Amino acid sequence: MTNQADEVLVVFTPSGKRGRFPVGTPLLQAARYLNVDIDSVCGGRGICGRCQILVSEGEFAKFGIISTADSLEPITAPEIKYAERRELKPGRRLSCHTKVLNDIVVDVPAESQVHHQTIRKGAEHHEISLNPLVHLYYVEVQEPDMHDPSGDLRRLLNALEQDWQLSDLDYDVSLLPQLQTTLRQGKWRVTVAVREGKQVVAVWSGFHDRLYGIAVDVGSTTIAAHLCDLVSGEVKASAGVMNPQIRFGEDLMSRVSYVMMNPGGEQEMTKVVREALNNLVLDLVQQAACEITDILEITFVANPVMHHLLLGINPVELGGAPFALATDMAVSKLAKDMDIYLNPQARAYLLPCIAGHVGADTAGMVLAEEPFNHDAMTLLVDVGTNAEIVLGNRHRLVACSSPTGPAFEGAQISSGQRAAAGAIERIRINPETLEPRYRVIGCEIWSDEEGFTEAVADSGITGICGSGIIEVVAELYLAGVINQDGVIDGNLAAQSSRIKADGRTFAYEILPATEQHSAIKILQNDVRAIQLAKAALYAGIKLLMDYQGVDRVERIRLAGAFGSHIDVKYAMVLGLIPDCKLDQVSAAGNAAGTGARVALLDQESRPVIETVVRQIEKVETAVEPAFQDYFVNAMAFPNKQDPFPELAKEVALPKPKEIASAADSRDLRRRRRKR
Amino acid sequence: MTNQADEVLVVFTPSGKRGRFPVGTPLLQAARYLNVDIDSVCGGRGICGRCQILVSEGEFAKFGIISTADSLEPITAPEIKYAERRELKPGRRLSCHTKVLNDIVVDVPAESQVHHQTIRKGAEHHEISLNPLVHLYYVEVQEPDMHDPSGDLRRLLNALEQDWQLSDLDYDVSLLPQLQTTLRQGKWRVTVAVREGKQVVAVWSGFHDRLYGIAVDVGSTTIAAHLCDLVSGEVKASAGVMNPQIRFGEDLMSRVSYVMMNPGGEQEMTKVVREALNNLVLDLVQQAACEITDILEITFVANPVMHHLLLGINPVELGGAPFALATDMAVSKLAKDMDIYLNPQARAYLLPCIAGHVGADTAGMVLAEEPFNHDAMTLLVDVGTNAEIVLGNRHRLVACSSPTGPAFEGAQISSGQRAAAGAIERIRINPETLEPRYRVIGCEIWSDEEGFTEAVADSGITGICGSGIIEVVAELYLAGVINQDGVIDGNLAAQSSRIKADGRTFAYEILPATEQHSAIKILQNDVRAIQLAKAALYAGIKLLMDYQGVDRVERIRLAGAFGSHIDVKYAMVLGLIPDCKLDQVSAAGNAAGTGARVALLDQESRPVIETVVRQIEKVETAVEPAFQDYFVNAMAFPNKQDPFPELAKEVALPKPKEIASAADSRDLRRRRRKR
Repeated sequence: MTNQADEVLVVFTPSGKRGRFPVGTPLLQAARYLNVDIDSVCGGRGICGRCQILVSEGEFAKFGIISTADSLEPITAPEIKYAERRELKPGRRLSCHTKVLNDIVVDVPAESQVHHQTIRKGAEHHEISLNPLVHLYYVEVQEPDMHDPSGDLRRLLNALEQDWQLSDLDYDVSLLPQLQTTLRQGKWRVTVAVREGKQVVAVWSGFHDRLYGIAVDVGSTTIAAHLCDLVSGEVKASAGVMNPQIRFGEDLMSRVSYVMMNPGGEQEMTKVVREALNNLVLDLVQQAACEITDILEITFVANPVMHHLLLGINPVELGGAPFALATDMAVSKLAKDMDIYLNPQARAYLLPCIAGHVGADTAGMVLAEEPFNHDAMTLLVDVGTNAEIVLGNRHRLVACSSPTGPAFEGAQISSGQRAAAGAIERIRINPETLEPRYRVIGCEIWSDEEGFTEAVADSGITGICGSGIIEVVAELYLAGVINQDGVIDGNLAAQSSRIKADGRTFAYEILPATEQHSAIKILQNDVRAIQLAKAALYAGIKLLMDYQGVDRVERIRLAGAFGSHIDVKYAMVLGLIPDCKLDQVSAAGNAAGTGARVALLDQESRPVIETVVRQIEKVETAVEPAFQDYFVNAMAFPNKQDPFPELAKEVALPKPKEIASAADSRDLRRRRRKR
Repeated sequence: MTNQADEVLVVFTPSGKRGRFPVGTPLLQAARYLNVDIDSVCGGRGICGRCQILVSEGEFAKFGIISTADSLEPITAPEIKYAERRELKPGRRLSCHTKVLNDIVVDVPAESQVHHQTIRKGAEHHEISLNPLVHLYYVEVQEPDMHDPSGDLRRLLNALEQDWQLSDLDYDVSLLPQLQTTLRQGKWRVTVAVREGKQVVAVWSGFHDRLYGIAVDVGSTTIAAHLCDLVSGEVKASAGVMNPQIRFGEDLMSRVSYVMMNPGGEQEMTKVVREALNNLVLDLVQQAACEITDILEITFVANPVMHHLLLGINPVELGGAPFALATDMAVSKLAKDMDIYLNPQARAYLLPCIAGHVGADTAGMVLAEEPFNHDAMTLLVDVGTNAEIVLGNRHRLVACSSPTGPAFEGAQISSGQRAAAGAIERIRINPETLEPRYRVIGCEIWSDEEGFTEAVADSGITGICGSGIIEVVAELYLAGVINQDGVIDGNLAAQSSRIKADGRTFAYEILPATEQHSAIKILQNDVRAIQLAKAALYAGIKLLMDYQGVDRVERIRLAGAFGSHIDVKYAMVLGLIPDCKLDQVSAAGNAAGTGARVALLDQESRPVIETVVRQIEKVETAVEPAFQDYFVNAMAFPNKQDPFPELAKEVALPKPKEIASAADSRDLRRRRRKR
């Protein structure tokens, strides 16, 4: 402890910033001087509690000091008052009202920093920087005076400039009608929300520290939304709802067709989706018990058709070549101008679309996954009715959309169903006996284990969900029931009663029909549907690999519900995705939705994704001659001689057979044209 | 004619810019190179006709050249086509399609310049620079292409950048729903309106060259609006309507009281004034036969209460000390957000208010009159229920509002009436006989001239308007009927039958009662009302003269209807305004409305008035102790010994009499309190 004169050494952790200050300097002032990141809404008035710090006690040989709680002045009246009103955990002090008496090491906990990281769960692999566009500032405004005719607004702006160095602030004119009342109700003390340090967007009487935003993923089928605390970054509430546009058409193309057949139909669809969003907002607000006026931001990801309909743009141009977007740029506008009712000054931000078939949802996936920050050649796949595919790394990104159709979602599959209780999601087929064992959603017990029958008594066994279909086809292929060209081998009917004739083709029966339900089986047509879907996906990937000039990828991230549920090994057995080290293939969760959340919480992510999207090279599968060839070639399942060395380490792939017969190829081309 | 090689000398007038160019250079290109101000909307495609020029024929010794029509290539096909479609006056050429062959002097007429002056009429003494915020640009947009997934908007912005060097343009998101249709309807040729070279605000299919704005003066009694062509600066239509808020209260204070008594009443008043504005707009559009969507700007001047009500702001704070404005800053917002329906992207601009009693109308007067550009100590007065007063020059401006009451408008005067046919507006009283001669509105003949009776047979003689009241009181004073303290001399009743007893005081009868109408006369109370009004006005002026440290003004401009109609000599006889050379006193017309038009046509005027308004020193008469003294002192009329030397050169002022009796002063104080 070697203090020079009346100065003491103050060290802040984790930043390590340090300096010497006169005895009696308030800690917050020292922090400001050293540019240490400590939050404050009330401007050092002991109201907000954001500037809390901890004394690190002990001997710090590195700095030559011993730091104790006594290095600060004893707890002050404003801190006691704050602790009575809210909570002040043991050891915590309000840095605005705490003066230094002696050398000290002060720790700034993460929640006291303006910019901190929020933890992402499960499949999400990196953290989101918390750096929202809107911040709150508490000010005391000078009262009006006959000798100074300045308006209330000017005096408010003056206070913001004086206390917070926010100069040349713009403001929203619609705040004016309420401004005078708000100032007087708050006895000239108000909290102001400022967007991007540039514009006053909300004013509350008195001290106010609640600020929220919503991140929304508008899918063709479902709309999912998260309400986030813009101060802590936490998700406070989540909600989902079916997209009500479904009544105008199940998939994107049928909704575009609806508009073509019904001029003005886009307005109906815009209306219903906005209504659904308003209901979602009410749901979230109720869950989180917050005020709707505390919501100042909303971000959206959506595919191009959903994006256009959300904005009230007729999507017909997206329904035919050249698939022109009205805009490929990020869109920022007042939420109320989209008929979404939050704080009247809340702004909506829609991530940019990449191309007519590759939307803001893909941009969201790219933002969440950040392949542009990785060296590894990364494949991102989001499988829906179309598969959005992005391939690349920090050097270059290419993207396309491939028309996989709805087979992966269990649609157009005879026993297919949505992923719900009672659906088969896992299946194994004994290569000797050809007998199946399986698990259904909502039950942890396999079908050949004790207690299974009782466990599924409630839900019954109702069908096969998307991931189950991938497994059953893959297991049938590995068991030799289906050959490389996807043909169910009728000869095996002699060997197993599971193989049954079905018209001119054969089927594999998992569960026989009972009085309660029809049989659950895989028809030849089901296998064909999976082949068409997986060929489309693989052909799209192959095209991008050509563009990148690579013959293998180093990392695969599967986004969306389908990607979260499938066993990647089986996806690879069927050749949905190219060969890759299995431990480098993983699910990315709802990456698009995560992207919306990143754009919500971190303002700097917006210019990043806007720039990245412009640099992504778009490949239009429809005009790529190679796509058709890749598609036809990808109909067959991988065999021992195919370039799947990583997969071959894990699974015994069947031997190659002769190439698909001409008749097979014709059949496939015909089916594809029909779609 | 000494041409170097293949270059020729091109001189543009009136700028005098000149340069040498290769033979065959299009004139517009030469102009662009030399930075000569020539307009163009179509970008040199021969469509808009804005770039017309004239060849100045003759020998120009100064440049050593002879300029003839043959110095240009003969008239071209696009010019013939343009002339067929529109008019191309003799000698006019389209500079975009005209190549130079030889040395030439080219004149750019005012209407071909982007920035030119518009002529102001009558009372208005200077010209308005034409430099609107919005300009039109015609572009041909690249069609979409499967190999280029850029959105239509991006390609539109690219075209604007390429053809017009407008880079980093922002755009209004609400344009998106119509954009694709507009582009396709125009076969990828569109005209774009860009605000401030920064933001795309409207897009029309094909070539479009109509662009309008509206300047509005929202008065307590009447609303007046002018529709202006933003390209030529011309006023295309004018319309006025009563302010429908009158049904909530005749004057400002009664409207503020209405809100105090009826919470939410401000919303009713906001609604009706906006409805009236929309009707005015429809009237203007019909008169000018233009499209409402061609209107992209609207500017407003208004007093503080009208200003607040127009914006939907509760004006109660303006009804009591400290008279706090919600904002004293200029306000710019979308017109549709004020429920005013023009082009959806039209912006409204409200000039800044100066203080709680001195509004955007006064700012408009200051902008129109530009005292800040003059050396002369200038007094600007706009008389209404309150008089707004500004005094100063380029060095310093001071302003105040003085509560004159409605007497100058003919209200609270027994025979007073609005300025309409039948109202006495001019009067002379013979100092010997005390007989009057007068003129009424709508008739050029004086009452003592032949044919008068017949001429006024239709309208009758119905009352006295504001300017008539000033004249009759002044003439009565000069004739000795009224003394310096404003007392009608009852002793004169013996001398003239015009002087009649009226209770305990006397009256002067101009016209006796008939069966059709009651008598037209001036009562003692009428003189008192005029005294109170003029004392308030003069006291306000005197206060400002004190602030400026001057005892005389060099120039007086009287704005508003009252200022336009009164004879300034009589105003000075009564002491409404201080002494000044009579030829330096003039009417300024509706200066506030002119200010709105300046702000509409010249974007550079907006920052100017915003800055000037901040620099104006505001004087609050209510808290100035001197005001009450000046007020009482100003009750008497000027006499020979008063400092009115300039007036004394023109008029024989009465001799001074002893100061007003104590009883008179008490009477006046009591009357003032009652108001």
